[in-house]
Amino acid sequence: MQTEVRYYQEPQLSKPVMICGLPGIGSVAWLAVNHLQKELKAELFAEIFSPMFSPKVWLTDDGIVKLMKGEFYFWKNKSPAPDLLLFTADEQPYSPEGQYELADVVLQLANKFQVARVITMGGMATDKFTEEPKVYVGATDADLVKELEGYGAVKLAGGAITGSNGLIFGLAKTRNLSAICLLAETPGYLTLDANAAKAALRLSMKLFNTSIDLTALDKQAKENNEAVRRAKDMSRGTFPHEGKKGGDRELHYVS
Amino acid sequence: MQTEVRYYQEPQLSKPVMICGLPGIGSVAWLAVNHLQKELKAELFAEIFSPMFSPKVWLTDDGIVKLMKGEFYFWKNKSPAPDLLLFTADEQPYSPEGQYELADVVLQLANKFQVARVITMGGMATDKFTEEPKVYVGATDADLVKELEGYGAVKLAGGAITGSNGLIFGLAKTRNLSAICLLAETPGYLTLDANAAKAALRLSMKLFNTSIDLTALDKQAKENNEAVRRAKDMSRGTFPHEGKKGGDRELHYVS
Amino acid sequence: MQTEVRYYQEPQLSKPVMICGLPGIGSVAWLAVNHLQKELKAELFAEIFSPMFSPKVWLTDDGIVKLMKGEFYFWKNKSPAPDLLLFTADEQPYSPEGQYELADVVLQLANKFQVARVITMGGMATDKFTEEPKVYVGATDADLVKELEGYGAVKLAGGAITGSNGLIFGLAKTRNLSAICLLAETPGYLTLDANAAKAALRLSMKLFNTSIDLTALDKQAKENNEAVRRAKDMSRGTFPHEGKKGGDRELHYVS
Amino acid sequence: MQTEVRYYQEPQLSKPVMICGLPGIGSVAWLAVNHLQKELKAELFAEIFSPMFSPKVWLTDDGIVKLMKGEFYFWKNKSPAPDLLLFTADEQPYSPEGQYELADVVLQLANKFQVARVITMGGMATDKFTEEPKVYVGATDADLVKELEGYGAVKLAGGAITGSNGLIFGLAKTRNLSAICLLAETPGYLTLDANAAKAALRLSMKLFNTSIDLTALDKQAKENNEAVRRAKDMSRGTFPHEGKKGGDRELHYVS
Repeated sequence: MQTEVRYYQEPQLSKPVMICGLPGIGSVAWLAVNHLQKELKAELFAEIFSPMFSPKVWLTDDGIVKLMKGEFYFWKNKSPAPDLLLFTADEQPYSPEGQYELADVVLQLANKFQVARVITMGGMATDKFTEEPKVYVGATDADLVKELEGYGAVKLAGGAITGSNGLIFGLAKTRNLSAICLLAETPGYLTLDANAAKAALRLSMKLFNTSIDLTALDKQAKENNEAVRRAKDMSRGTFPHEGKKGGDRELHYVS
Repeated sequence: MQTEVRYYQEPQLSKPVMICGLPGIGSVAWLAVNHLQKELKAELFAEIFSPMFSPKVWLTDDGIVKLMKGEFYFWKNKSPAPDLLLFTADEQPYSPEGQYELADVVLQLANKFQVARVITMGGMATDKFTEEPKVYVGATDADLVKELEGYGAVKLAGGAITGSNGLIFGLAKTRNLSAICLLAETPGYLTLDANAAKAALRLSMKLFNTSIDLTALDKQAKENNEAVRRAKDMSRGTFPHEGKKGGDRELHYVS
Repeated sequence: MQTEVRYYQEPQLSKPVMICGLPGIGSVAWLAVNHLQKELKAELFAEIFSPMFSPKVWLTDDGIVKLMKGEFYFWKNKSPAPDLLLFTADEQPYSPEGQYELADVVLQLANKFQVARVITMGGMATDKFTEEPKVYVGATDADLVKELEGYGAVKLAGGAITGSNGLIFGLAKTRNLSAICLLAETPGYLTLDANAAKAALRLSMKLFNTSIDLTALDKQAKENNEAVRRAKDMSRGTFPHEGKKGGDRELHYVS
Repeated sequence: MQTEVRYYQEPQLSKPVMICGLPGIGSVAWLAVNHLQKELKAELFAEIFSPMFSPKVWLTDDGIVKLMKGEFYFWKNKSPAPDLLLFTADEQPYSPEGQYELADVVLQLANKFQVARVITMGGMATDKFTEEPKVYVGATDADLVKELEGYGAVKLAGGAITGSNGLIFGLAKTRNLSAICLLAETPGYLTLDANAAKAALRLSMKLFNTSIDLTALDKQAKENNEAVRRAKDMSRGTFPHEGKKGGDRELHYVS
């Protein structure tokens, strides 16, 4: 079976920005893009079915079957924001070859829609918890890095980014696409780090020159903050690592 | 070497139902489909040879060699039952890519024979042994779930199904094929859970509007029941896990 | 890189018998075919280079580099023996897909030369050492099994054969090639079991209706016998397992 | 995604010598080729992007993204030295198939530029540290081995070379390309063995009939020598293994 991109509609978009968020450490990128999709009511227009995803299916609460897949959404701009293409998936491909194939398929679609810029996100593991995580930035050219630094991002000087969120970013450069990667600090023991997702989204919004309601993420972030505080109280400062969304598909930033 | 589907005859069938049963937990699906094949004297008409199966061969009691393979059988209807296509195999493919390829090949054949409905089966691991296992159902649409609930099945609300029996089911949906998956409760420590196979078959028969003699399965089921009872007597209630058909190819339902 | 079969000459053969011997338990098949090649002075006429072999090279005593490869030799008959094609390789492919590919390539060559019969060999692990190992036989049809039983082989009633020596045998059946597999008893702890190789060759010779000098193998066999005897003396009957040619590429007969 | 060789210019070269140096034990080959590139100011003219490399990206100190890749450089001769093609990469391919593919791609390029000779290098693990490591040589024909012995190399009589530096060498022979492999002694616990790289380069220079400034390597070599001496002083002769650049991609010479 070959990878299949199935189109449900052909949106007419004007130099859209593509934002990619796949599962990874702290689910930072996944949370950010899924929040954007819900908040903007972005419309599903294409899906990826592929052997690069795990051979399993999910069932909805209604007992309806769903394959593991990637999903593309679009959102027509409310000026001054650009049109958006969102990409997310149920998981990252399990094999290295699959990682490359997914990045390739995503960037072919980016090319088809004449995407002006690609943004990928991720978490950067740190030892400490903070309610105001820093966001690190890498890009395909120095001007973009400087622009993001102007918005408060910290330059990623050296290091490696593993997995789809890094590979889509890196392959974009070889296709002459302008791209940035935003990595928000995350303590590593949080399954859904809404603080980090918020921090990455806030920076993106400055880039889009628009604003997005982050209330839904605030709720999750507050729960995390309180859980961390309780744990710290109990252990008098040493925070027990808990509920790591383990597994060998977790991808880490290694500086 | 490429996957090869070799046809021995080209049966003329009218909107057949395809029932797939590959090895898995408790061998539930495999037992059910192999029982159907023997009971109905369904005829072999095609085989799959493929590198997605393990690189080994079997020998019959007569010393004749057999490759690992998949097998398709057909059965012409005795009204009011529909024509049947049965699919089984010696094992599930060992790689994720192989799992997708097998599901793809099976559904291509389903398409060729204009299959009206695809049924896959499996075991759902539970902690306790019961002589009357529940059967859970998922489907490609809500009406099918409701129809099966009417026959006594329990809706699979959420969860994942891993392996071929799940993937054939899930890929069917993307090919606009009507499909259901029946998962019978099985305690996990039984190699051949005939009770679970019977429970899944009984539900299928309601769907076919026909009846099939289950005597052969009854015998295996009775043996299981007695073995479990003896073990319980010996251990006064705590049942020792025994004879697990181990190995990494065993596929589990994870709710 | 694709698998490449490189021909150095195009021998004209009359319905040759193809004998395949790849490394495996006790190196039984490899020893047998390499002995045949040397004894008959069979000529190299083709080689297989392929990514299905390990990514490494060998150096000769003269410092000349050699790739891992498969080798085909031919021997023109001295009546009443048939023409022979010999196949051996430095190792078995490391992946399941590679195992199928190698078997496929070998049988395509068998087809090209209109091979009358394919013989594969192997070792069957036993617990005890014997100077007169039994040889088990499986075949593509019952008449062949009976013919070999007439020569003293024991029918392989049930069981599985893993790896290239089994897969070439099994795929031969699906290509309508007549094939047999000879498995000689081997204690498992011998790296080069010349006794077992001799036993398999002796049976093959009856099938070829010819005779081959086994002196060179006798020497290795004698060394093995003496080593086993010394070890038994020292340990008063319990034989220490020694010098197993370990590694995950070792293939076992599992009955 | 397929492997892509991207050309930035098409150098006109006259029967160039190709020198390949990929990461491996002691980084011997990688150090040697990277030193050559810097010292000769060889120009980048092509890059390899491929799923055979790890699915990750690097960031420069300026925050600019870079894919894992292979790089080809050229250097126009200053008589009497030949034109040079240099090949290096960020890592060796992670899979056996990838190792073959990389070697194939490199040799296709060698063919395109009518390369007169291919030189690969590597480290040969030894137990002891020496400031004057021996260099072992294997080649595609006996005359080359003898020529190198004349320059002070030791013949590699037997043994295996695993990984890209061996495979490019071995595949060259099947393509009728003249090739040599130089393996410099390295103690195994050094991440960057500049002594070994120098020894391999000095031999190559005799082959090129030219001279290259090794000062930059001398500095690294001196640091290694001093670190080893300090460690020996502290442990009175038993040298602690330190800072092994571990991981399963490390490739070893096994004699």
